Amino acid sequence: MKPSLPQGTRDFNATTIRKRNYIFNTIKNVFELYGFQPLETPAMENLDTLTGKYGEEGDKLLFKILNNGLERKEKHEQARLDFEKVLEGKNVAGITERALRYDLTIPFARYVAMNYGQLNFPFKRYQVQPVWRADRPQKGRYREFFQCDADVVGSNSLLNEVELINIYTDVFKQLNVDVEIKINNRKILSALAELCGGSERITDITVPIDKLDKIGWDKVKTELADRGLQHLQIELIEQYISIDGDNESKINNIKSLIGEIEIGRQGIRELEFLLSHNQDNANFSIDFTLARGLNYYTGTIIEIKAQNVQMGSIGGGGRYDDLTGLFDVPGLPGVGISFGVDRMYDVMEELKLFPSSLQTSTQVLFFNLGEAESKAAYDLLRQLRNNKVKAEIYHEAAKFDKQFKYAERNNIPYIIIIGSKELEAGSCVIKNIATGKQETIEQAELISFSFE
Amino acid sequence: MKPSLPQGTRDFNATTIRKRNYIFNTIKNVFELYGFQPLETPAMENLDTLTGKYGEEGDKLLFKILNNGLERKEKHEQARLDFEKVLEGKNVAGITERALRYDLTIPFARYVAMNYGQLNFPFKRYQVQPVWRADRPQKGRYREFFQCDADVVGSNSLLNEVELINIYTDVFKQLNVDVEIKINNRKILSALAELCGGSERITDITVPIDKLDKIGWDKVKTELADRGLQHLQIELIEQYISIDGDNESKINNIKSLIGEIEIGRQGIRELEFLLSHNQDNANFSIDFTLARGLNYYTGTIIEIKAQNVQMGSIGGGGRYDDLTGLFDVPGLPGVGISFGVDRMYDVMEELKLFPSSLQTSTQVLFFNLGEAESKAAYDLLRQLRNNKVKAEIYHEAAKFDKQFKYAERNNIPYIIIIGSKELEAGSCVIKNIATGKQETIEQAELISFSFE
Repeated sequence: MKPSLPQGTRDFNATTIRKRNYIFNTIKNVFELYGFQPLETPAMENLDTLTGKYGEEGDKLLFKILNNGLERKEKHEQARLDFEKVLEGKNVAGITERALRYDLTIPFARYVAMNYGQLNFPFKRYQVQPVWRADRPQKGRYREFFQCDADVVGSNSLLNEVELINIYTDVFKQLNVDVEIKINNRKILSALAELCGGSERITDITVPIDKLDKIGWDKVKTELADRGLQHLQIELIEQYISIDGDNESKINNIKSLIGEIEIGRQGIRELEFLLSHNQDNANFSIDFTLARGLNYYTGTIIEIKAQNVQMGSIGGGGRYDDLTGLFDVPGLPGVGISFGVDRMYDVMEELKLFPSSLQTSTQVLFFNLGEAESKAAYDLLRQLRNNKVKAEIYHEAAKFDKQFKYAERNNIPYIIIIGSKELEAGSCVIKNIATGKQETIEQAELISFSFE
Repeated sequence: MKPSLPQGTRDFNATTIRKRNYIFNTIKNVFELYGFQPLETPAMENLDTLTGKYGEEGDKLLFKILNNGLERKEKHEQARLDFEKVLEGKNVAGITERALRYDLTIPFARYVAMNYGQLNFPFKRYQVQPVWRADRPQKGRYREFFQCDADVVGSNSLLNEVELINIYTDVFKQLNVDVEIKINNRKILSALAELCGGSERITDITVPIDKLDKIGWDKVKTELADRGLQHLQIELIEQYISIDGDNESKINNIKSLIGEIEIGRQGIRELEFLLSHNQDNANFSIDFTLARGLNYYTGTIIEIKAQNVQMGSIGGGGRYDDLTGLFDVPGLPGVGISFGVDRMYDVMEELKLFPSSLQTSTQVLFFNLGEAESKAAYDLLRQLRNNKVKAEIYHEAAKFDKQFKYAERNNIPYIIIIGSKELEAGSCVIKNIATGKQETIEQAELISFSFE
């Protein structure tokens, strides 16, 4: 049989893993620097933990696990009845009881609900794990991909938002990626909705606005009209999305537009707090067109755009009122952010931001030139490894060429040669492949040789 | 709804993750020190990649993914027919096409077969990822658990075995776990089978011998007889498993028992080679009763036993002739080892071998004592973080007690207090919670304070 991979999934080889780990480790280290603690949940959740949490479309994208043991005869009659319900699009415990996690938020909520009494609030967790979605695969969209989330729950303090914004700043600074950190507040959007006839209109306003970047104002206008917004209301929304200038003048303009509405004033106060804590942050900017689709968010919303490259957002998040209500635990407020690691990878690849030093793993290859020679080499190899030098010995006595090629193809910068002559003299030849420089030293000196 | 976890799966909190990562990172670092390169494969594989590779029992333990889109009406007729086959225990692409990986070896073989032309042989890969098995959950057996494998393929050299044994030695030394590294060779077992009537008897001999530890010789004897072995053959096997003494005398005894058989002589030569490379390794011992169930192995077999604790093997591996034959790529020989991380965790927990320093994450908590005070604290916090000190600020102005408790419950060793007095004086109070020692220093001096 000719082996293949399931659609939308990927193998990662060493070169790619090193680059991905560079991103993951940078993010994790910053999370830890800010006092966030790791959490890991299982790949599978009970189906009733997941269904109904991601909307009708989301439910269809869950990867469900077929129950085991269906071949047992005594189960067949019931299984056939149950399967009919599966064909109707229902979940039936007789056929499937579990599914792969679809995101990290619901498993986190489930964890908090299950462990509520043991947790120390505010609870700051981060989680970096794969999720699975049965989306139609396309360029840049996979059926298995990593999410990388940090959340604080059990606190209403805006200091948490300040911290999360600083996490973004620190991570992208360390990775050398220029970004714009865009901020808005759902309360301001709520105020706009109130001005347009009532807070229940917020979805009719935010869904079109969210597409502004992609489809332009004319089409947004048509969609707003289709959703029943009147001419004057659309004019108001146009005024709203046209607010421009630096952060300060944006604040002034929004005040004159929605400052009469109580919830709008709250939103503005919150933005001002974040501004006052980000005065030295040149990448921080208010963007009133930012809406973020999820109605889940209730306060600050954040989105990260990479500069100098065509790419959707590479991170985002926001404040929510109620993490655990769905699991019968009194609603916990919180705020969270997420990094879009696959897109970050593509941006860094395009801008050539991965340090080339990532790709050196083994530093030294000892040539294998016979039994006695390789035994002497092996002793030296062990000494180097005790000094934390990553080193290998070629697996068998072979021609120079072949061993040399192995070093080259594996990016090993140094080779060490102990032939019969060196064996007798107690010496070894060290060659730097890149420079071609070659020197002969005493074997006893090798341990203090610097492989930089 | 009351949330719960699927049977046999676990959440890992920060305390457990730190301990697990201590094990994982130690292993990965040693793998890299020896020139092994990371590989990651997707959680899902095509079902036909996995079925038939783990025996009939293994096939039943695969977690299969239910296809999406079964609710589409035009598919119903075929789906019902297909489901009848599922009830017969068959895999039908119309119902399920994918399954979660069951181990790391078959995905590795699939990867090597798919990328054969691009790989540089000998190819040394390591892989640390979860696997899933629909086993009945019980103490110490989970449905989701990590495997941790290293393999070299494309080489017959015994130097690879030497390297893998050294990896075991280094990892367990670094983790402070005393182990016995038990070695045998399937060729010696083959020779024994030949002496007992033919090489095809090897399974009838090795399956009972494998249980010797658990059920004792009397029951093994009965099982051998049940499997058709004659009295004289069983006597021979008893002689075989009774071989005792140090490694050298074991070699002498086995020579006199099976040294006449060609394949036995080969196996002995291979053992001698490993012995000669492990003369300084006190934990290395030949164990002729070691059989390792899998017929897959063809040469050296290895198993790791922890000392001073009741526990099954915590690692094992061996040499095989043909990794990729099943995937239509000419059989590649190789040798691999695996670490049993869950059991290692239990051993280290029981012997209290986890360093307590693992559990300090955040080093400093700044108290929050009002808006102006917390702003000053926040500036200092950022300075500390720039110096890589993990630090937090309490999320809101609150009573001393509450903030103190947060520090205690999160194992944060230092608190820093900036109240109105300190704000005015430009000072801060640093308190070490464990010692109770408290001192007041200038805020400007904080950056050079040593939080050890």
